[in-house]
Amino acid sequence: MLRIGVIGYGYWGPNVARNFNAVDRAQLVGICDANPSALARAKRNYPGVRLTSSAGELLNSKDVDAVALITPVASHYSLAKAALEHGKHVFVEKPFTCNPEQGEELVELASRASLTVMVDHTFLFTGAVRKIRQLIDEDALGNLYYYDSTRVNLGLFQHDVNVIWDLAPHDLSIMDYLIDARPQAIVATGEAHLNGLEDLAFITIYFPGNTIAHINVNWLSPVKVRTALIGGERKMLVWNDLEADEKIRVYDKGVRVKNRQGVYDLLVSYRSGDMWAPRIEQTEALKTEAEYFVDCIEKNERPFNDGDAGVRVVKLLHAAHQSLKQRGKAVRI
Amino acid sequence: MLRIGVIGYGYWGPNVARNFNAVDRAQLVGICDANPSALARAKRNYPGVRLTSSAGELLNSKDVDAVALITPVASHYSLAKAALEHGKHVFVEKPFTCNPEQGEELVELASRASLTVMVDHTFLFTGAVRKIRQLIDEDALGNLYYYDSTRVNLGLFQHDVNVIWDLAPHDLSIMDYLIDARPQAIVATGEAHLNGLEDLAFITIYFPGNTIAHINVNWLSPVKVRTALIGGERKMLVWNDLEADEKIRVYDKGVRVKNRQGVYDLLVSYRSGDMWAPRIEQTEALKTEAEYFVDCIEKNERPFNDGDAGVRVVKLLHAAHQSLKQRGKAVRI
Amino acid sequence: MLRIGVIGYGYWGPNVARNFNAVDRAQLVGICDANPSALARAKRNYPGVRLTSSAGELLNSKDVDAVALITPVASHYSLAKAALEHGKHVFVEKPFTCNPEQGEELVELASRASLTVMVDHTFLFTGAVRKIRQLIDEDALGNLYYYDSTRVNLGLFQHDVNVIWDLAPHDLSIMDYLIDARPQAIVATGEAHLNGLEDLAFITIYFPGNTIAHINVNWLSPVKVRTALIGGERKMLVWNDLEADEKIRVYDKGVRVKNRQGVYDLLVSYRSGDMWAPRIEQTEALKTEAEYFVDCIEKNERPFNDGDAGVRVVKLLHAAHQSLKQRGKAVRI
Amino acid sequence: MLRIGVIGYGYWGPNVARNFNAVDRAQLVGICDANPSALARAKRNYPGVRLTSSAGELLNSKDVDAVALITPVASHYSLAKAALEHGKHVFVEKPFTCNPEQGEELVELASRASLTVMVDHTFLFTGAVRKIRQLIDEDALGNLYYYDSTRVNLGLFQHDVNVIWDLAPHDLSIMDYLIDARPQAIVATGEAHLNGLEDLAFITIYFPGNTIAHINVNWLSPVKVRTALIGGERKMLVWNDLEADEKIRVYDKGVRVKNRQGVYDLLVSYRSGDMWAPRIEQTEALKTEAEYFVDCIEKNERPFNDGDAGVRVVKLLHAAHQSLKQRGKAVRI
Repeated sequence: MLRIGVIGYGYWGPNVARNFNAVDRAQLVGICDANPSALARAKRNYPGVRLTSSAGELLNSKDVDAVALITPVASHYSLAKAALEHGKHVFVEKPFTCNPEQGEELVELASRASLTVMVDHTFLFTGAVRKIRQLIDEDALGNLYYYDSTRVNLGLFQHDVNVIWDLAPHDLSIMDYLIDARPQAIVATGEAHLNGLEDLAFITIYFPGNTIAHINVNWLSPVKVRTALIGGERKMLVWNDLEADEKIRVYDKGVRVKNRQGVYDLLVSYRSGDMWAPRIEQTEALKTEAEYFVDCIEKNERPFNDGDAGVRVVKLLHAAHQSLKQRGKAVRI
Repeated sequence: MLRIGVIGYGYWGPNVARNFNAVDRAQLVGICDANPSALARAKRNYPGVRLTSSAGELLNSKDVDAVALITPVASHYSLAKAALEHGKHVFVEKPFTCNPEQGEELVELASRASLTVMVDHTFLFTGAVRKIRQLIDEDALGNLYYYDSTRVNLGLFQHDVNVIWDLAPHDLSIMDYLIDARPQAIVATGEAHLNGLEDLAFITIYFPGNTIAHINVNWLSPVKVRTALIGGERKMLVWNDLEADEKIRVYDKGVRVKNRQGVYDLLVSYRSGDMWAPRIEQTEALKTEAEYFVDCIEKNERPFNDGDAGVRVVKLLHAAHQSLKQRGKAVRI
Repeated sequence: MLRIGVIGYGYWGPNVARNFNAVDRAQLVGICDANPSALARAKRNYPGVRLTSSAGELLNSKDVDAVALITPVASHYSLAKAALEHGKHVFVEKPFTCNPEQGEELVELASRASLTVMVDHTFLFTGAVRKIRQLIDEDALGNLYYYDSTRVNLGLFQHDVNVIWDLAPHDLSIMDYLIDARPQAIVATGEAHLNGLEDLAFITIYFPGNTIAHINVNWLSPVKVRTALIGGERKMLVWNDLEADEKIRVYDKGVRVKNRQGVYDLLVSYRSGDMWAPRIEQTEALKTEAEYFVDCIEKNERPFNDGDAGVRVVKLLHAAHQSLKQRGKAVRI
Repeated sequence: MLRIGVIGYGYWGPNVARNFNAVDRAQLVGICDANPSALARAKRNYPGVRLTSSAGELLNSKDVDAVALITPVASHYSLAKAALEHGKHVFVEKPFTCNPEQGEELVELASRASLTVMVDHTFLFTGAVRKIRQLIDEDALGNLYYYDSTRVNLGLFQHDVNVIWDLAPHDLSIMDYLIDARPQAIVATGEAHLNGLEDLAFITIYFPGNTIAHINVNWLSPVKVRTALIGGERKMLVWNDLEADEKIRVYDKGVRVKNRQGVYDLLVSYRSGDMWAPRIEQTEALKTEAEYFVDCIEKNERPFNDGDAGVRVVKLLHAAHQSLKQRGKAVRI
């Protein structure tokens, strides 16, 4: 039985607590939040669980095997470090850390102590992303041409980070999960309109060969869009996460170049076949992820969304931020 | 009565011929195409019109007052130059020329000869773009934050130019028309997958202040998208050109920053009111443009889509192309 | 302080309990359900509330001022009758009763005892229906031509009633609320495919003058549709309840007949103007309804969704059922 | 070479003429219209074709093998009769005739003279309807539960017929083509709001067994809808004719009744699998139909959209009209 303490009970923490609480082989044993009203809410939901406003109390406790850190990113490094030093497994909200160095240090620490670090890239546990991964594994799409994601809506400004650090971790972690190659360079542009933090940004990621990714994030859009186009040599797909059903549409469409005798003789033919929307598993992603965390610890297996995955995403965020500040100067990864 | 000759009767030329032929104060007097089957089609449609495979025949003719050049971009400069030297007004397909210098020379030539040059930025004559321009003129949107356009579909590869030169002239000319400020710098990224020509590209355009534009063009998308988001301080709009009705939706949505005492005290409030889809004029854009061309010549007025507008767009295309080739290096305009 | 007992804690009961519990001037004092696991759930959510498997215990209790009956329709009459006889106000799930006579008896009983009966026509408290009612009150639509609703999806078969009794109460209560005139006759058709209960049905309701309503309900549709078209002389609207925003779209469209000198001389002109999607209040409908119930009792005011409204809907259900069984024979109301 | 004359060159006639003109083994030899401006248009398009304002001239001509009657329905019977009596094959606009008797007389006449009669049920030649027919032929849908069509929009009032005669021939001919069983009874309701002709109507058609069809036609809808739901035991589909691509979506969804030991023990389970949008042939329907007409005559084969099909549709229109006038009284076919 894995005894888990949740640190941070604001917006996302209650979901994490609820899902760990529901895992059979786990037990929610403590909740920490500095905010008294958050603790009051926690008390109503989990009368039997230890409540505290001091993270240290959970980090030091012998009755806690693992902690979930659902706090602002600035606190991740020090809390995770303390947790690892006290021999606890760590589940940490994305983005992993403020910079790659912090993340790498935590990975190193966990490795030496044989502890599990998992970064909460929740989207990787949705039915949609798992189905896309499966299509790629089956080579249904063929050689990957591009991944182009749009994630825009009105609002949910963060006060401490710009739109890249707020919204792009989703796309970057998904991209990292779906594309086996490692990024070479990143180009980001964007602008701030209200409070000095960029509220829209456009990120291009170059991969070896001719695979390319693009991410459009925007806090100032009148409409909510959550759409990714993924183009492959064999098939292409559209993932619209706002669709209730049919989130993924796979198009039997493509292009064939027939003749390469000079540019003007080029014969391009378009193929246009059926469209197919596979049934998507509807399980709550966080539930699957919570079970996976407990599984990985029990079986002493390394999760695919481990500290390294967290570091990879932070590196990209960091590089995108640097590029943005220099108006699109390409930053090598 | 303005006597017009159309040079180039391939894909777009027949539409230009048909619309000039329908203008009351104009007369379609000649059609030129090197392709015999194009001429045969022209003959069926306009039995009384002079047909020729030699552009020179129309350019030299005393019975021609103006020519419409609907030919590949590589030929625009020399044909337009010859036309102007023979004292003819020129209507020229977009993009205006292969490089800014050619365009500037044509503008200079036309100016000295007091001839009209109009670049066929057809979209500026659609009901949708005119309605957006009207909303901006009435200051309905307030200070402009961003213009973000997506123009993707499968196919219609050009064999001689990449996707920027093929699709982005639409967005750049619309942006040039809607945003009064002049661009400062451009950043473009993209990739080629099939024949060495980039088939998808992402372009950011920086304006003075904090106005920014972004253009996503892609020949390899499984679905067709023609959508632009325009964000203003006061209102925001979505233009979906694929909607039969309700192409433009104006959202009474916005953000207000209430408190500027330090970043953490910032109070951001979101405003969410009605949505409104103004009725859009349904007239064929090219019809309106053809009448406007004849009007401008008759009244000796300079069209807003004149050679200068054409040069501005070519400069942006050129800069985007340069930036793309250097993986997003910002190019000053 | 109104002390309320909730009888029936299955699918909808928990929502009713939660919302009455949240009303300031009300107190949830008891929950009854014959199912032990339902009671267990109730205990977790409301540790301090009296729980019982006997409805009689709440109906007889002096500590209960009102009861909410969220039980199968077959039990409504006897439970409501007992409640009224014990001097309790009654909030009852739709449809009110199995037949009009039962409903009328309950109305009579309540009237003599000066007690409030409210039928839970929840949709009348949604922002969408209230906005449509407001548009009608302001005469924005003009003389009403038709109300045409489609409510189809896969599943949620009831085992005891057909699709008319399951889905049409929503539409009939909305129609009853929006259209001031009283129905004259009803025609219903439909078919049963699986278990002898009709799983799809089409209902036409005739009103005086030329107002007409139509309701399409179907348990066997592959897609979920919740759309109503409402046509007026002046304006028309589409209510799509599945839209996250913009549930209501008001079209400035219409028809004008200009000339009535014989049918062939008729000049019909179509008017097509702007579309407008008013902002809709997002409050949970049941919350508003619960507060209204308490309000009506406190102020001794008759709710608009009173027993009479319940009877009117039951009469229509009954007539539709009769008509359906006779393959569309018109049944007068 | 089949020599064809087209009688009626108003709205639809030009399409018919153009398509017959394009058939290799046919020749457009004459066009008739009483309206001089229609004839002038015909002259521009077909300079070499005989033009006349007298139908008799074409009907009597020895140089005409077949006529296409694209005139108001009231004239179909007499024109077709004359054509058949002069030994000409007949292609006639839908609906076939004003009443079933006229249609049956024409069928009899044609049969005796061994001439072909084809009724222009154009929709049967669309890629979408042919694909649905193919799915039914392959038994992909299983036993058919229902066909539910909505065909509504603003406008195109006819001055001589109500909305049933104007719009429902499409749905009735499609239904007749897709459902092998023959209708038993029809129930129709509706209302007139402007000029005494019904502008909206709701039609139910009962088939043997428990197959049922429903048609919703409306001239007073603010939005255009062209959607049919088709429910089968095995699969269900949605046909949205306004979609550019993906007009047909086949859902692997269904219901299984597991237990029939009394109504309350009934276990209903829902099956929800993939969705699939087959590629649809994009050829112009009328082109395919025109070729088919010539084919049938050449090979002396009876078309499936023959006079009998026309009579079946007219019988349903007639019955629906009768039912409508009696407020939904079921009319047996």
